Amino acid sequence: MKVVTIHGSTRENGNTEYLTYKAVPKDKGTHLYLRNHFIQPIVDERHAKDGFKPVKDEHKDLIQKMLEHDVIVFSTPIYWYSMSGPMKIFIDRWSQILRDPEFPNFREELKNKKVYLIAVGGDKPTIKGLPLIEQFNYICQFYDMSFEGYVIGRASKPGQIINDERALKAASSLLEP
Amino acid sequence: MKVVTIHGSTRENGNTEYLTYKAVPKDKGTHLYLRNHFIQPIVDERHAKDGFKPVKDEHKDLIQKMLEHDVIVFSTPIYWYSMSGPMKIFIDRWSQILRDPEFPNFREELKNKKVYLIAVGGDKPTIKGLPLIEQFNYICQFYDMSFEGYVIGRASKPGQIINDERALKAASSLLEP
Amino acid sequence: MKVVTIHGSTRENGNTEYLTYKAVPKDKGTHLYLRNHFIQPIVDERHAKDGFKPVKDEHKDLIQKMLEHDVIVFSTPIYWYSMSGPMKIFIDRWSQILRDPEFPNFREELKNKKVYLIAVGGDKPTIKGLPLIEQFNYICQFYDMSFEGYVIGRASKPGQIINDERALKAASSLLEP
Amino acid sequence: MKVVTIHGSTRENGNTEYLTYKAVPKDKGTHLYLRNHFIQPIVDERHAKDGFKPVKDEHKDLIQKMLEHDVIVFSTPIYWYSMSGPMKIFIDRWSQILRDPEFPNFREELKNKKVYLIAVGGDKPTIKGLPLIEQFNYICQFYDMSFEGYVIGRASKPGQIINDERALKAASSLLEP
Repeated sequence: MKVVTIHGSTRENGNTEYLTYKAVPKDKGTHLYLRNHFIQPIVDERHAKDGFKPVKDEHKDLIQKMLEHDVIVFSTPIYWYSMSGPMKIFIDRWSQILRDPEFPNFREELKNKKVYLIAVGGDKPTIKGLPLIEQFNYICQFYDMSFEGYVIGRASKPGQIINDERALKAASSLLEP
Repeated sequence: MKVVTIHGSTRENGNTEYLTYKAVPKDKGTHLYLRNHFIQPIVDERHAKDGFKPVKDEHKDLIQKMLEHDVIVFSTPIYWYSMSGPMKIFIDRWSQILRDPEFPNFREELKNKKVYLIAVGGDKPTIKGLPLIEQFNYICQFYDMSFEGYVIGRASKPGQIINDERALKAASSLLEP
Repeated sequence: MKVVTIHGSTRENGNTEYLTYKAVPKDKGTHLYLRNHFIQPIVDERHAKDGFKPVKDEHKDLIQKMLEHDVIVFSTPIYWYSMSGPMKIFIDRWSQILRDPEFPNFREELKNKKVYLIAVGGDKPTIKGLPLIEQFNYICQFYDMSFEGYVIGRASKPGQIINDERALKAASSLLEP
Repeated sequence: MKVVTIHGSTRENGNTEYLTYKAVPKDKGTHLYLRNHFIQPIVDERHAKDGFKPVKDEHKDLIQKMLEHDVIVFSTPIYWYSMSGPMKIFIDRWSQILRDPEFPNFREELKNKKVYLIAVGGDKPTIKGLPLIEQFNYICQFYDMSFEGYVIGRASKPGQIINDERALKAASSLLEP
């Protein structure tokens, strides 16, 4: 099983990354750090006469890489009770990919991929992060991906995640069969 | 009561805007269209030595305008079961405003503002849009804003919102006392 | 379309009933008041050697009546952020009906029935009632029933529902095509 | 810390109990099995002239015992995406206790108690059980109890819970400080 981890954090070596490496070690599989790539927000031209205008950025490259794997781990800090802006921008653009002739089988290729989610927040994340879990579940449903599991960690200040032993333990075995 | 509407749609005159104008006519109050303003995604430097680096964009201007009103109407299409990317970017940056010396009373100024949410989606939005409602509720709780109400409309293709009579009716009286 | 309304309120002529009659007038369709019927809580014997023991109560009669209709309106006060006890007991027992030889096609008969939900609570029900909405949605999904819509009303003291004009208006057109 | 576990399962030695004993061994603290006690469903007489009529059952005894502890563990199978009927009946009646002169300080006594939830379901419980988590959170908020944590296990047939190693592990350390 080839594993790709999509990192939505805007901070290097932050709490979310620390927790994520427990699930997918830094040197295992493919790690994509959205903050290191230029991705434009979507402009909804689904219904424009000529459809979506081509966008010059790295989104397609990232999508291409993502599709080459069987397991996708989304890793995001919880910003305002939802995924990070970069993660949102990355996913919003899937609407464009769905209509991109370069990806005629996007939906089929995502189908049956296994998805995991790792999210870290500071404000009662195991409760207030639940809407985020439900949203990822709906995304998985749309593409018929299998939402295999998630871990919610609690941390705010740098390094604080090491105190959330439950999350660390849960992350360690998250991808185990 | 001064009303400001924050539009998160990336498409002009789309379904979300149509529904929103039922609640707040286009010529009433202040309308801010995020798509017409340059706003950078947040880089989380809350814990960086020197704090957030200044960002050259229009975010502060928009925040300033928003704060001059008593009622805030958030209007967003539902992209992937969550608010639009531009809306997410706009709100993510509030973390920076909270630490900006130019806005020493940001939290206090938001306190007690009345908030409404108008959201439009194409995939069973009255169910799959509920996590989005909960997230806005948590945002309001954080700032002690009063989440007064919401309307969820159903539409996908241009113009389709006119078929959602229930949403149109509900929007028409959304801001009524 | 034959409409049956299942009333889960324990109080006669309460707020929930008032709101429900806006959607389904008292003299239209069939109204079942769970409080007037004797229904035993389920004892989970799905995996007992001899399966469920027969229960002497009125549950089967109610199920039989319910199945004779095309549209099911569930009407419940929100007790502790969830459906009322009588409604819960009524639905819990569906697990037994699923294994009852007298109802060999229970699941098939429910399939494609249209379902509406009317719920009334006193503590921010349009937010804190959302988990209840999601639960009914999951119930509908399980049986492949079509969850057509819901109205959440706000009221606590007797009669208070008349102040929730939005809910009353929404209920009035809830079952309209 | 005195721990009381409220068991809502209707089946002895079922999956939910098995998982719960990982968190609170059978011989530790107080275990109350609702199925062994006679509890009447609530009749909402909050607004009746003479208030609630006295009910002859064991509810008050259970409440009294519950209040003598610092930590409350709610343990419930997930029936139709929500707590079991017996658990619902038990909690519904709290509305009556709130107005019972024998419990003049019910709310104050619950305040600051620590609450844990253990729930087991068969149909994607880590997703479809989330509304139940949110409901318990709202209940805790109402009484100002501290919702310390929860574990959701997956099992349907007898004994199946032993396959959910993640839940078993999480339960084992659920009450650890």
